[in-house]
Order: sequence, then structure tokens, then C-alpha cells
Amino acid sequence: MEEALVNAPNVGREVVVVQGLGFVGTAMVAALAAARDALGAPVFTVIGVDLPTASGRKKIEAINRGESPIVSEDPAIGAAIAAGRENGNLRATDDEGAFELADVVVVDVNLDVHKKSPGAVDDYEFTYAPFEKALDPVAERVGQNTLVIIETTVPPGTVANVVRPLFEDAYAKRRLDPAGLLLAHSYERVMPGREYLRSITHYFRVFSGINAPSGRRARQFLESFIDTKAYPLSELHSTTASEMAKVLENSFRAMNIAFIQEWTEFAHAAGVNLFEVIDAIRMRSTHRNIMLPGFGVGGYCLTKDALLADFACRETFGGRSLTQSLQALRINDLMPDWTCHLLNRTAGRLDGRRIAIFGVSYLNDVGDTRYTPTKRLYDHCRQAGAHILLHDPLLDEWEEPGLPVEQSMEAVYAFDPDIAVFCVAHHEYRKLDSKKIMELMPSLAVLVDAFDVIGETNARTLAEAGVTLAGVGKGHWELPGGAK
Amino acid sequence: MEEALVNAPNVGREVVVVQGLGFVGTAMVAALAAARDALGAPVFTVIGVDLPTASGRKKIEAINRGESPIVSEDPAIGAAIAAGRENGNLRATDDEGAFELADVVVVDVNLDVHKKSPGAVDDYEFTYAPFEKALDPVAERVGQNTLVIIETTVPPGTVANVVRPLFEDAYAKRRLDPAGLLLAHSYERVMPGREYLRSITHYFRVFSGINAPSGRRARQFLESFIDTKAYPLSELHSTTASEMAKVLENSFRAMNIAFIQEWTEFAHAAGVNLFEVIDAIRMRSTHRNIMLPGFGVGGYCLTKDALLADFACRETFGGRSLTQSLQALRINDLMPDWTCHLLNRTAGRLDGRRIAIFGVSYLNDVGDTRYTPTKRLYDHCRQAGAHILLHDPLLDEWEEPGLPVEQSMEAVYAFDPDIAVFCVAHHEYRKLDSKKIMELMPSLAVLVDAFDVIGETNARTLAEAGVTLAGVGKGHWELPGGAK
Repeated sequence: MEEALVNAPNVGREVVVVQGLGFVGTAMVAALAAARDALGAPVFTVIGVDLPTASGRKKIEAINRGESPIVSEDPAIGAAIAAGRENGNLRATDDEGAFELADVVVVDVNLDVHKKSPGAVDDYEFTYAPFEKALDPVAERVGQNTLVIIETTVPPGTVANVVRPLFEDAYAKRRLDPAGLLLAHSYERVMPGREYLRSITHYFRVFSGINAPSGRRARQFLESFIDTKAYPLSELHSTTASEMAKVLENSFRAMNIAFIQEWTEFAHAAGVNLFEVIDAIRMRSTHRNIMLPGFGVGGYCLTKDALLADFACRETFGGRSLTQSLQALRINDLMPDWTCHLLNRTAGRLDGRRIAIFGVSYLNDVGDTRYTPTKRLYDHCRQAGAHILLHDPLLDEWEEPGLPVEQSMEAVYAFDPDIAVFCVAHHEYRKLDSKKIMELMPSLAVLVDAFDVIGETNARTLAEAGVTLAGVGKGHWELPGGAK
Repeated sequence: MEEALVNAPNVGREVVVVQGLGFVGTAMVAALAAARDALGAPVFTVIGVDLPTASGRKKIEAINRGESPIVSEDPAIGAAIAAGRENGNLRATDDEGAFELADVVVVDVNLDVHKKSPGAVDDYEFTYAPFEKALDPVAERVGQNTLVIIETTVPPGTVANVVRPLFEDAYAKRRLDPAGLLLAHSYERVMPGREYLRSITHYFRVFSGINAPSGRRARQFLESFIDTKAYPLSELHSTTASEMAKVLENSFRAMNIAFIQEWTEFAHAAGVNLFEVIDAIRMRSTHRNIMLPGFGVGGYCLTKDALLADFACRETFGGRSLTQSLQALRINDLMPDWTCHLLNRTAGRLDGRRIAIFGVSYLNDVGDTRYTPTKRLYDHCRQAGAHILLHDPLLDEWEEPGLPVEQSMEAVYAFDPDIAVFCVAHHEYRKLDSKKIMELMPSLAVLVDAFDVIGETNARTLAEAGVTLAGVGKGHWELPGGAK
């Protein structure tokens, strides 16, 4: 076992090991390290565990330097990690020996499902193998009294049918008492962005233990770092219910997003400003969450959770495919095609044009490119023969396709685009006014605003200055250059 | 012209004629008659107009007797109509001459669209002919300064492309100034039920005029009977936008209802209590309107508005079919099949069984059978060879199929059912406890609760007493008789 772990000062604090230092694990590590008791003392000794891969090591090293491994607009995450390092109640490691020290293990590893192509919701690959592989060292090392909490989003039924047998088998082999296994499911509702840390500590939580002792321990644990007075816990009667709640709420949101797409196209055909219509509809409390038109859907949850649900429904419980929820994923996957269509209409040919794409991340004010809808726009422009500059203030590269991303506006000026597409409402983009846009891109002929980024006033000023505009922004569906 | 109209006392009040005395027209007549100025005097002289048909005359006579032509749980409607008759500022007629007296005409006639069979969302019939026929006498009789407000739910584009030309042609023929036409679209959000009248006077409204003078007059009119301080008006930039808002918000709601159906079946297969799951999800403000499982969708709006939208999108604006929104209608139309399925599973054979169906109206505490989901359940039971008693405290007959409905519980007792299905959460049904249910139906062997009507405690007590239960109620998915 790593020496630092063996020598970690045990000052009577519970030891929590967080497995997986991605978007959720990082926020959990920060929230747990920052938890304080009534006297202001740290509640937990926190150990973050990730794999000894290049990306795993990068995260581990960041935390041990006192920095957040995740780029976000919330300084609280980095501050909590720095304080945890300073106070000596936080470290990260790739040493699986950490699980032996744990009073609580929080499992935040990914469980992936692969669509073979965007929108291919009937043709996906799913296997428990990597998840089971991640759980094996936990089951082989934790003690009899360790509480294991699965936070990973999983197909409903996973804890009961996969995780519990896996741990019970391991316990039996290790001559621990399988009947004493303490296991629960609880899911977070992390929102990377400006309230990244608070979305862990100040928000509603759902959980369930596999039995009463597991439920009690899980409640106690959650109450120690979440403001459960303001945000009461929801304890459900089974881990399957808790798992279902997670994929259901994300499928609901994905469906709400998908719903508006066909109305976006309808409103465009009818010359109606859909933003105005939706503002009027949102006056009704029952309709307040109707979504605005947008560019597309990315990230790790909304693009896949309905697939996990569909897998469970069909494979585990012998039910019918969740057709409508899958259809929503399909619509969302293909949503950027609408922006491509607007771009084609507005710009005419793209071949040989210089297109600046603003926003590679899937979400405003977060540097996260997982399943970003920008991919589909990028592919469209590249296949059409355009020269493309990718810009994002929160990224220095686009890892998955391995493309450079420019962070500076100087690079945009040097590129001298004649077409600009705004995809993501990053803070830095929202600050741009028409004057700055023209200074930055003196050759600009066409601007497509795919997410109401620049606003109506700037759009009209740019149109007067000769730029042709299209987009789903307020009141400027399509403005020919020179329009008033 | 009818003598009473000619001799109607003109005391300087604006005359408002409401065309069509259905669910909306009745509430409008009541709200307008009850409107008071700062000194407490009636603001309007109100004339309700309907057709000289049997059902039209029935409504007219009810109003002229000082009674509501609509059965509902809100006494305020009847009270407002009675007061209007007493104060002499309300009457009803089938005399189209009324339009000649109007300062404002509010059009509340139906505009129907017919699915050829339930769920046949790709095979519907729609024509403007009856709507145009209803508008003709208005256009031929109103004065130059009369404001015409279309409240009917119509395909987006109708006021601009159908109503406006119809009036302009009529005005031109009558040597009135077509350019001076005052025409607007505004839609209500009436909810029949306990807040039926207040859903007109104390709720948000959307409207748009065809031009600035029409918009101004419409605003002034709406402000005179709606509490627009508490519920500000939303004025949109075109009548097409206002029309779209109406069908969009109803399509959104229909889709939210449809969404949960496949999850209802999934939860059933997985043995999860979906009510508990949804309660947990509703903690999130963004997810508060996620719907509970239910029996089905009826009524005039949610079952058809997406079809009107689809018609406009395809036929008027050359767009693509609104596939997702139509799909939601299809799912909702077929939703009662789930209850039929539960009934089959629980009861085994239905042939020769005596089934009491509680709830023929589509909505709790309202006597309205339009497109009621009970139809599908009734057909299923009848085709299976069951003897059926239909019960509804708010109906004395089921007009469309022409079937008797029992209002009294004595009739249920006399029928002595061995199967009961609760479809609608009428107040009277919610009051029933397990003891009363057993007294009422001593031979009861199977109870299906399709809408969480009787509640968990009663369900468990009935199960202990030997009744076999199924349903979508809280915590009693399926309880074999004798279960604890």
C-alpha cells in the first residue's frame, strides 16, 4: 500500500474513499473534504481513487497539488480541494489499498453505453463488464462494516441484480458475512457550472439501501455533508426505485428538450418568434419548464440515460422497449442538423469559407466536450470543405477527435472568418457586443446564432452593418444583411 | 330580431355577444356578466348566442332561467348567471340579430378535427367549413367598430389566413371599411372543476390583435373582466403566435402525460412504486410537472390540439408533420388499454361478470364525457361479454353512445357487481372507505383502481378482506386477495 496512505493521520474521522474522479467524483471529493462538524472540524478523511492511466494520474496529481482536475466556472471546487490538502484530510491515489481504509466507499465510476452512431437509439452496445471490473477491487478489499454507495447512473435493477451478488460472493470468499453487507444506491444531481459544488451540498437527494441498516447508514452519511434541512432526503423503498428515479428524471428532461425541436421548425416555417410564445406559456406554473429552442444536447447523462433504462426494461425485466424516451434521444442527437440547415440557407456554399465555431463544450461555462453537439456541426462544415477554427475559452484541446481549440480572441482575429457560428452561451460570448464582433471579424458576412447567444440588439445592429444572420435567438430568425 | 333584444335596456354599457355556449362560452358569459366597474356597477350587457338546435336551445333556456347549462362543481358559475339574469345584464338567444348590437363579439364555437379511430393520428379529417359557416352571420351583421375576438382553438394561421379574409370580404360587400376591421385572437385556459369561473377571471391570458388598434381594444376588453394586475396579459406580435401558443401548451401537456405511460409499464414490470419515484423527482423545480400514472386522457383540448397544429404546419406552412406531438396523442388515446390489461390479469375472464365502472366523465368533479377514456374500457368489457353498470354522480346519461348512467349508490348495490373499476377521482369516490365499498358491493372479488382513487389504506384493507386489487394507486400495484 502507498506509504502516504499507511501513514495518513487517523484522527478519529471516518474515511471516505471516492472511486472515480470525473465530474461527479471530483465534486464529491471537494464536498466531503469541506464537510465540517458542529465545532468546525473536518468530518471526513477523504481519499480519491482513480486508475493508473494517463488521464487518471493527471486527475490524481491535480488533487494532490490542491487543484481541481475539472475546469469549471465554480471556484469553490478548487478552493475546497486546496483547503482539503492544506488541512490534511484529502488526498488522491491510484492505490486500491485505499479501499481497506474506508468506512464509506462512494462509487463514481462511469458505466457507458455506446450508440453506434448519433441517433442510433435502437442499436446500442451495453455490457456490465467494465463496471464489474471496477467493483471487484472494492469488494475484495473493503471491511465488513464499510458502507458502499453506488452513485454511478446504472440500469434500474443493477444494485439488486449485479452489485449485491458481486459483493456477496466476494464476502463469502473472504469469510465475511454476506448478510451484513452495507450497500446503497444514491444519485447526485451535479450541475457543472457556477454552482458546481453547491449542486452536491445544497440540493435534493434520492437514496435507498438494500436493507434497513444500509438505509440508515446511507442517510447518516448523506446528512453529514448535504444541507438536508433545506433539501430533505427522499428515501425510496428499493434501490431499483432509486436507480429508476435517476434515469427517469433525465429521460424526462431529454424528452422536454426533444419536444420543442419540431415546434422550432414549425415556428420558423410560420414566421413566429418561438421565444415570445414560450415566454407566454411559461406564465403557467405547470408549463414553466417548457424548453427554449437550442443547438443540441451533449454531456454524459441526457444523451444516454434512457438507453440504460431501456436496457433494464427489456433485458432485466422483460418489458417493452421505451420507445418514446429513446425517440427523444434520437431527436436530440440530430438537433444540430437544424443549425447546419440554417447555416446552409444563410451562407449558401460552405466550400472554401472560413468558419469560426464558437463553443466546443456542450454546456455554457463548463469545459466539457463529452458528446458535444458541436461535433455534428463541425463534421458538417468539414465535409462541405470549409476551413474551420474552433474556439472555446474553457478548452485548450478537443480530446476525443484530437483537435486544437483556440482559447484567445486574437486567434479568431488572425483567422479572419467570414462565417461565425455561436453554439454555446459561454459568459465570454455573452459579453460580446456588435462592435466587438465586427472588430474581431472584419470580414464577417454570415452569423448563425444557434443558442440565443448574442441577443436581439446586437443581431439587428450587425444586420444593419451588412451581416446576414440566422438563428434561434430572440426576434432574429433570419435577417438578411442590411435589414433594419 | 327577437323582441327582448330590441327592447334590451341600453344603459351605456358595452354589449358583448358570446357565440357558442359550451364549456368556454358559458364561463365567459358568467365572467362577463359578473364584471363590475369601480362603483360596483355591471360593466357589460352580455348576450349568449347558440344555435337553434335541441342542445343549443337547452343551453339558452338554462341561462335564461338563471342556471348554468354546464354541470360542474363550481357554484360560482350558476351564481353569476343567476345574478346576471336578476340584474338584467345577461340573456341568451339563438337570434343572430344579437351580433348587430355587439360592441364586442367573442367567438367560442368549436372547431373540430376527427380522428377516424382512437390513436389514428395520421388519419384525421379537418375542414374549416363549419367554422366559416359559424363566422358568416357575425361578419354579415357586426358594425364597423365591433371588436371580434376569436377564442376558439384553431390551427395557427387561421385568423390571418381564414378569419381576416372572411371578414374583409364581408365588410367590402357591406361597404364597411375592411382596413378598419378590429380582430384579435385570445385564448382562455378554462379548467372546468372547482375553480371553473376563476380560471377565466384570475389566470394568465395570451392575445394578439391583427394590428395595433385591434390589440389595444382587445387589451382594454380583457382588462375589464380579468385580474390582470395579479395575472398580467401576454401580448404577442401576431395572431399566429397566439394561436400557436395555445396548441403548443396543450401539446406539451399531452406529451408530458404520454411520456409517463411507458414508464408506468416499466415500473410495473420492475416491481417499483412509480408514485414514490415521481414524488422524489418532483422535488426538483424543473421536474415538478412530471405526471403521475393515470387512466387516460379525455376532453376537448388535449386529445386534439396537436392535430390542429399538425394541420397548420403541413397544410398552411408547408412544414413537416409534428411527429412527436402526434405520437403523444396516440399513446394517450390508447392509455386505457393498460387498465384493461390489469383488469384481464386480475379478473381472469370477464365473460358474464358484473362490472361496475365508476366514472364516465373524463375529469374529476366535472360532468363532461367528451372523448372520455372510459369509452375504451367500456368497449373492452362489453366485447368480453361482461354485464356493465356505468356510474357517475355528475351525469344522468352518456350522450354520445346513448347509454344510461347511474347517479346513485343504491343502483350500484342493486347491481351487485363482482368487479369494480374506478376510473375518475370524483370527490364522491374519494370519500369511500373500504367498509363502505364492501357494504356497497358485498360480492366484490376484484377491484381495479385506475387513477389512485381509493388510496393505499383502503386497498390494503380490501385485500385483507379477500378482494383482489390492481391499479396504479400508491403502493398497491397488484394485491392478491388475502395479502397483508
